Amino acid sequence: MRALSSLPLTDRGLHYGDGLFETMRVVDGHIRLLDRHLGRLVAGAGRLAIPLPPMDTLRSSLEHAAEGHRDGVLKLIVTRGAGGRGYLPDEHPDPSVVLLRYPAVAPDTINAPVTVRLCDLRIARQPVLAGIKHLNRLEYVMARAEWRDPAIAEGLLLDTSGYLIEGVVSNVFFVREGRLFTPGLHQCGVAGVMRAHVMACAERLGIRVEEGGWRLDDLLCADEVFLTNSQSGMRPVVRLSGHRTWAVGDLTRQLQLALGADA
Amino acid sequence: MRALSSLPLTDRGLHYGDGLFETMRVVDGHIRLLDRHLGRLVAGAGRLAIPLPPMDTLRSSLEHAAEGHRDGVLKLIVTRGAGGRGYLPDEHPDPSVVLLRYPAVAPDTINAPVTVRLCDLRIARQPVLAGIKHLNRLEYVMARAEWRDPAIAEGLLLDTSGYLIEGVVSNVFFVREGRLFTPGLHQCGVAGVMRAHVMACAERLGIRVEEGGWRLDDLLCADEVFLTNSQSGMRPVVRLSGHRTWAVGDLTRQLQLALGADA
Repeated sequence: MRALSSLPLTDRGLHYGDGLFETMRVVDGHIRLLDRHLGRLVAGAGRLAIPLPPMDTLRSSLEHAAEGHRDGVLKLIVTRGAGGRGYLPDEHPDPSVVLLRYPAVAPDTINAPVTVRLCDLRIARQPVLAGIKHLNRLEYVMARAEWRDPAIAEGLLLDTSGYLIEGVVSNVFFVREGRLFTPGLHQCGVAGVMRAHVMACAERLGIRVEEGGWRLDDLLCADEVFLTNSQSGMRPVVRLSGHRTWAVGDLTRQLQLALGADA
Repeated sequence: MRALSSLPLTDRGLHYGDGLFETMRVVDGHIRLLDRHLGRLVAGAGRLAIPLPPMDTLRSSLEHAAEGHRDGVLKLIVTRGAGGRGYLPDEHPDPSVVLLRYPAVAPDTINAPVTVRLCDLRIARQPVLAGIKHLNRLEYVMARAEWRDPAIAEGLLLDTSGYLIEGVVSNVFFVREGRLFTPGLHQCGVAGVMRAHVMACAERLGIRVEEGGWRLDDLLCADEVFLTNSQSGMRPVVRLSGHRTWAVGDLTRQLQLALGADA
């Protein structure tokens, strides 16, 4: 496996967004939640029928890159590679692998309370692409372009049928009467690795997470709301701009404590 | 305006499919339907808020490229350019321009009758991105990957609500009792330049084109069906695999004749 230093103009990642990515947090030379990132990549590659490099090779390349990049962010992009003209994928694609390093997120954002807004853009329902982290991200660009106020940390997204799905770069959970809920992602949305990690952590604490279809009204009735993201951990939502405020709740704090150094 | 020879790995075209493209037919050193291609590009750039190079510069660069490429295909890609990390677009983006040359389509495909199939994949409904030719094309890759039989020229696409939208690389028209219909593209689909050209041509002949929401059953009741594409012109559909056959109809022939050298 050889990571590219520039992209051939014929790459299908550019032409069609025909590929996948993972954005991983590196702390002290180690990638957090690496197994979960690789698991999602494998799931996405299966869905898109993109052959990945051998998992051992991929893992050791990532670990090696992390060693040389003590703290920060590693972004891995895997595309279907260069293609002939046209949508038809090659029967035996030769994927392109791109590995990029970015600075660490500001430490004071990790697990920190946030104000969010509701985006006007509604996410399209496409079960064939739901959950995986593919390169077709224009909806998220359009949603993120709706605000520049740095006091707003995140935008919440409903889908075109009015169901709550996620944040632009996070997943959303809410608590009501001691029960923990998160939107199902079978129609759209990205199944975040921190979402999966928080769900597993909750199960270990005996807290069942209910996945399903909920609307804005369900969120507005919640007792606690928090967001998950592999870079910034578990952030309590203390205000939905134009709607209401929340205190940081007990269940949120309990889960943050349980996540500990993984958040 | 300088077309790139390779793409920086930080380009938002790769990371998010954050850009647009046009695929243009070149005949005798001239680009067919250039005004319509540029018009759609401008509409798409407006929708995505990507600043284009001055139109005169863009047009003369394309015309110059066509002169040196007598017959074939020119593909223009315009992305939002390199970006910082994250979905938020730069306030003053510096777009990337890529220009690629491909061989001409086989002459015997132009205006030639075709057999098509119905794709399993349903196109998602996303009005914010409908009609424009953006770089988020994974749905079309997935749909095109459904068949490799070279006897099938095209796959027809319904949307997730069951409405007929288009072909993977074409738009679709059908005739019933002397009236001409084509799917509206306000929820999804690409508004092809040949579609617009055929509609204008029909209007000149006094034939009104009715845009709307139609289902597979409407297509199956049609007297004539044809596809439009800027490379292959107006192709009569003579068979929908597993469903029915059609003869090449009078209105189809009349429109093909009227299009003449533009097809």
